[in-house]
Amino acid sequence: MSKAQLLDGKATADQIRAELAVKVGEHYARTGRRPGLAVVMVGDDPASAVYVRNKHRASTQAGMDSRQVLLPASATTGQVLEMIEMLNQDPSIHGILLQLPVPPHIDAQVIIKHLDPRKDVDGLTPTNMGRLMTGQPGLRPCTPLGIMELLSRYHVPIAGKKAVIVGRSQLVGKPLALLLLEKDATVCVLHSKTPNPSIMAQDADIVVAAVGRPHLVQTDWIKPGAVVIDVGINRTAQGLVGDVDFPAVLTRAGYITPVPGGIGPMTIAMLLSNTWQAFQGELNA
Amino acid sequence: MSKAQLLDGKATADQIRAELAVKVGEHYARTGRRPGLAVVMVGDDPASAVYVRNKHRASTQAGMDSRQVLLPASATTGQVLEMIEMLNQDPSIHGILLQLPVPPHIDAQVIIKHLDPRKDVDGLTPTNMGRLMTGQPGLRPCTPLGIMELLSRYHVPIAGKKAVIVGRSQLVGKPLALLLLEKDATVCVLHSKTPNPSIMAQDADIVVAAVGRPHLVQTDWIKPGAVVIDVGINRTAQGLVGDVDFPAVLTRAGYITPVPGGIGPMTIAMLLSNTWQAFQGELNA
Repeated sequence: MSKAQLLDGKATADQIRAELAVKVGEHYARTGRRPGLAVVMVGDDPASAVYVRNKHRASTQAGMDSRQVLLPASATTGQVLEMIEMLNQDPSIHGILLQLPVPPHIDAQVIIKHLDPRKDVDGLTPTNMGRLMTGQPGLRPCTPLGIMELLSRYHVPIAGKKAVIVGRSQLVGKPLALLLLEKDATVCVLHSKTPNPSIMAQDADIVVAAVGRPHLVQTDWIKPGAVVIDVGINRTAQGLVGDVDFPAVLTRAGYITPVPGGIGPMTIAMLLSNTWQAFQGELNA
Repeated sequence: MSKAQLLDGKATADQIRAELAVKVGEHYARTGRRPGLAVVMVGDDPASAVYVRNKHRASTQAGMDSRQVLLPASATTGQVLEMIEMLNQDPSIHGILLQLPVPPHIDAQVIIKHLDPRKDVDGLTPTNMGRLMTGQPGLRPCTPLGIMELLSRYHVPIAGKKAVIVGRSQLVGKPLALLLLEKDATVCVLHSKTPNPSIMAQDADIVVAAVGRPHLVQTDWIKPGAVVIDVGINRTAQGLVGDVDFPAVLTRAGYITPVPGGIGPMTIAMLLSNTWQAFQGELNA
């Protein structure tokens, strides 16, 4: 039975991180300055703690100045805002990321709105979302950016192709739709209220699953030879799985991302790439 | 032969404008204050001049303070920016609209970026686009807002329906995609690089044509009973026509907007509605 080619997010992310480390090192040797990334985490959600540690390790390995800002779960929105304000003003910090989710009593939207758009390396401020909508330069959300970068490095054609995105989140579905449109794909966005998602996906050239439901995407969703991008990260009794029934779809797709080792590592690589871009933007300002 | 029900944008817009006139009149009687709308036009494009006059008449009829700001085609970007800055500061002006297109030597994006988001009644600033992306309250672009309002006033169901938007502009296609997603439609965005648009539209419950190509949408694009929204306004030898082959599609669709008298009047009604909203926002600030 034929098998899809793996889109190896881990290897691609490693390469991007190595490229960035060289740039950061050269810049530091020349100027004595390096990009600074602050990751703000509120509370002690164990999954979030793992993500924050991974980001810390990755940014440090890239030669960046990494700061973990850990606030207790009891912190108020006002206290988080004060911390954000300090980081906005701090000239040694070029990127600020608020690790989501935050505890329910904290208003994430209010905090995101207060991030300096120039330091908004997750691309979530209204300003950067607006720049994305209008095709202007700006910081783009890391996960959709990582998907675009992975497709680009594997020379997957996008123009004129039909892309189906399952999931309409602010972090993935909506911004990815805009990035794919920018590259001349025809884009359909499906979600929990779509009556027959498998039928709508059946003739797609590119299928992106980003909903957080294990095994949602089965072989009957996938046109033979299609490109399948799995953004889901679900903890199950069988371990970490995506939204795609990987073993089954592997025999039908043309390209497929694994979970883990697909879009997850690319997201972190794009966080570093955005921090580098923010660092340079400040230099040009 | 059966005929589609007309979605009468003209009548609906007239009703909305009458409702607004009552609100504005009551507010003025109580406070002596009325909403002020400035329409800025650069150059003397005849089509734009017609639009500007229509907006002036409509806002005046609604009891608003209407200001037409006409700059010569020779104006520089800097001069237009100065004018925008004055209007941003002017407490009697609550809405500012830059009539598009502007002459080629003027950078419309730069000017739009300088609009005070609270006065951005066309919803085109990055801030308002970002609010739209993230589902936060803000001023929405008038044409997509007019489409949503027309569908709402005719009680056309949207949740769970498949909507196909032909055209990916910043003014219509992209913001409309987000507004329809917000109302739980499954949304596909087609454009000039889509290989077989008619096939992709064939099973859609709602088809929106917004590209500016007369007679693009033919009966073979339309599922019997579908809702057809025609945003196109094309001047042809046969007079003003939309993007839809109206006489043919009329016999196949369930609902259809005429051109003229469909989305055009709704766009102006939403401009007034946004100006009213901006006026109230200022009072609440």
